[in-house]
Amino acid sequence: MDLEPIYAGEGQNVTPDDFRKHGRQVVDWIADYLENVEKYPVLSQVESGDIRRRLPASPPLHNEPFDKMLADVNEILLPGITHWQSPNFFAYYPSNNSGPSILGDLIASGLGIQGMLWSTSPACTELETLVLDWLVEAMGLPGSFRSTGAGGGVIQDSASSASLCALLAARERATGFQSNRTGIDRPLTAYASSQAHSSIEKAMMISGLGADNLRLIELDDQFRMRPDALQAAIESDLAAGKTPCFVCAAVGTTSTGAVDPLPEIGPICRKHGLWLHVDGAMAGTAAICPEFRTILQGLEWADSYCFNPHKWMLVNFDCDCFFVADRTSLIKTLSILPEYLKNKATESGAVIDYRDWQIPLGRRFRSLKLWFVLRYFGLDGLRSMVRYHVSLARQFASWVEASDDFEIAAPVVLNLVCFRHRGGDEVNQRIMDRLNQSGELYLTHTKLDGRLTLRMSIGQTNTELSHVQRAWDRIASAAHQGN
Amino acid sequence: MDLEPIYAGEGQNVTPDDFRKHGRQVVDWIADYLENVEKYPVLSQVESGDIRRRLPASPPLHNEPFDKMLADVNEILLPGITHWQSPNFFAYYPSNNSGPSILGDLIASGLGIQGMLWSTSPACTELETLVLDWLVEAMGLPGSFRSTGAGGGVIQDSASSASLCALLAARERATGFQSNRTGIDRPLTAYASSQAHSSIEKAMMISGLGADNLRLIELDDQFRMRPDALQAAIESDLAAGKTPCFVCAAVGTTSTGAVDPLPEIGPICRKHGLWLHVDGAMAGTAAICPEFRTILQGLEWADSYCFNPHKWMLVNFDCDCFFVADRTSLIKTLSILPEYLKNKATESGAVIDYRDWQIPLGRRFRSLKLWFVLRYFGLDGLRSMVRYHVSLARQFASWVEASDDFEIAAPVVLNLVCFRHRGGDEVNQRIMDRLNQSGELYLTHTKLDGRLTLRMSIGQTNTELSHVQRAWDRIASAAHQGN
Repeated sequence: MDLEPIYAGEGQNVTPDDFRKHGRQVVDWIADYLENVEKYPVLSQVESGDIRRRLPASPPLHNEPFDKMLADVNEILLPGITHWQSPNFFAYYPSNNSGPSILGDLIASGLGIQGMLWSTSPACTELETLVLDWLVEAMGLPGSFRSTGAGGGVIQDSASSASLCALLAARERATGFQSNRTGIDRPLTAYASSQAHSSIEKAMMISGLGADNLRLIELDDQFRMRPDALQAAIESDLAAGKTPCFVCAAVGTTSTGAVDPLPEIGPICRKHGLWLHVDGAMAGTAAICPEFRTILQGLEWADSYCFNPHKWMLVNFDCDCFFVADRTSLIKTLSILPEYLKNKATESGAVIDYRDWQIPLGRRFRSLKLWFVLRYFGLDGLRSMVRYHVSLARQFASWVEASDDFEIAAPVVLNLVCFRHRGGDEVNQRIMDRLNQSGELYLTHTKLDGRLTLRMSIGQTNTELSHVQRAWDRIASAAHQGN
Repeated sequence: MDLEPIYAGEGQNVTPDDFRKHGRQVVDWIADYLENVEKYPVLSQVESGDIRRRLPASPPLHNEPFDKMLADVNEILLPGITHWQSPNFFAYYPSNNSGPSILGDLIASGLGIQGMLWSTSPACTELETLVLDWLVEAMGLPGSFRSTGAGGGVIQDSASSASLCALLAARERATGFQSNRTGIDRPLTAYASSQAHSSIEKAMMISGLGADNLRLIELDDQFRMRPDALQAAIESDLAAGKTPCFVCAAVGTTSTGAVDPLPEIGPICRKHGLWLHVDGAMAGTAAICPEFRTILQGLEWADSYCFNPHKWMLVNFDCDCFFVADRTSLIKTLSILPEYLKNKATESGAVIDYRDWQIPLGRRFRSLKLWFVLRYFGLDGLRSMVRYHVSLARQFASWVEASDDFEIAAPVVLNLVCFRHRGGDEVNQRIMDRLNQSGELYLTHTKLDGRLTLRMSIGQTNTELSHVQRAWDRIASAAHQGN
């Protein structure tokens, strides 16, 4: 029997000094990377298989030096990175990041704890609950979401998972918490606008309700859900013997940033007993500024709400904040208690066990990075960031409006500008491809009323007026180039 | 309109030099923490609300200095931490960690990229696919799991999510991929042993199949699933007009580490067309050693398999490796493609988009830490770790066997020892409570044949013979103390 400690092999022992040394190398590497990120093409220009081809086909039998690994990150991986932290990244949505977030996350990695139960690290649970209560105050969210009442908040990995949890709670509430036990035994229906995020359709698939039972509600001329159409769809399903259970409204749709009219949608949901989930994934962050809180008007009707600090609030992925007004429904939906997880704190009923608020069992100490960001910048700092990005988007929109070649394609609510060249889809596709292949900036698209539309999404940590100005110059000149 | 850059406020600017400075502080903090972790009580001794009470009720309006935040981690949070990285942590399962993993994860935080599509960072996708292929080779997994054939691997957050994805694919395959569209329209059943992880029951709830439709199959005298009972349960459901679709077998159950007999379960699944998922969450790591690969005998029958490097392979949470033999079924189950995610690489069909292999859309660059661990330790290093932990468990078991007061409660397969005092449940509960309140070590329990049983789970990074020896001394002496 071999009773020697592990890592006895030469070069394999991670001593505290090794960790200090390599840790400093990595900290410096990140500082250098973020300082130089503008030098790389924003959208990776490699072809399929290029990265894999440069790496060994088999795993190493013996240990390799740390320096070699870091060199390979630079030489082999970096060409295959699309630089989401570049100030010239205007694609999809921002995924902005910051030093305090990275370091809060690093402490979480170092502590290496599991937050599945209160007892497996009380600080992990209590800090998370507190920080989400802080956000209720900081963003003017309805008091029903506070943990000190019947509600509460939890950090999920993504808005997709939050929407899924909300849909599951809706399904269970509508079936008297019986679907969980006996399976789905009736036709349940759900509702979202035709601009809702694809994760709602995916949640319908996962939950066993079926994507065909999601009604995509028509839009008004500003790409917002039409409450009268929602009302009609619910009534039509009721008449057909279906059981409507869930509505997802968007505060900032992915395509255009449109805000569904919660003050009108809310009463419809209440009247018919439907669970109202509000998805504010990107735009929700804006509510940190009092002047932008109109986007959340009517949120007091919601049973649940989520937004992603990992999009526009300087917290690195993953960090979605999910709030419920009635935590009991969520917990009844997601709770199971095997013998090996039983403990006195849980049995006392006095603590939160977050494993009952999410899909997986295990969970990381994610509130640390959010806490660090809120403290390092303060609400003041985060507000000035949001205001600056919104002002940049308005500036960009004003250039589009003043141009003869381009037009604004949807109302500019916050930091997202939908626009297009007047020359039609082919021209817009050509402009986008040309810009993205240049490596100088990265833009993505959507379709509005069947027409290809470019999206300028502004919110990276280091994006300044000069980047937006240069992007507009490039866009305008790309339009003037021939085929 | 305010067009000043953000972070103009004094003290709010995260310069590269600030990041270098604070980054070093955090690296040193982690090195110190891991060096001193034995000084803290393993199980946090705080009461409910103790941590929250010491933190401000409201978020800060203005920015705070980084040093203050780090001081609060020490003074306020640490007492509320249960120290999973302590070498005296023997509870639940290991969650072992290592320097290269922490630093690989740190690089992922710094890069701050999204891996949802190949095109959003090709290196993120290609490294992940490669490293999971490496593991097929390193652990002697069936070739069907290689991405170079019809299969492939993906990193999930947890075994819970992997099992859920497997169950969903099973549901879809059994219904001709129609449940996804039209909802569940027939009674589907699934099977696992009565010792299966609670996440299987939770997956039944989430997927809309219903927990009552999970058949908990009886055990043999070594807590393994009985294939004859599985066969009988399937036949009984078929006779009753149900549609059996899924079997989850465990390679290392949570309670005892029992290994379900795959060579007999496999043919039963194949005969009836059931999806076989194998959950090797903790024990799976042992397959890195050729001499322990008998636990995976029969894995070639499996449609999917998962194990967690974040449990026993020195990778910090989250990192579950999930393999499928037929990736098409998984992708057909979880894929949706909205306009705003369309891109040429996806349309070419030549690339993997991992968002179609998981529940959420967004994803972190998790393969970096796994790649770092495999390279820094090499297969040799990981093998010596596994062998050492297994030898420690065998040593501990030999002390239990030689004792008059205690008995072994289940076969010791690898690094988990189930044992109990002969004096009955009350005595065992008292021993466990006394040890856990002492702060000197942390043990948890299960129930076997209705009797409270202690679990000694060995696998922390720095656990050595001396820790196990001292744990046994404490256990033995706790048994001799009165009430």
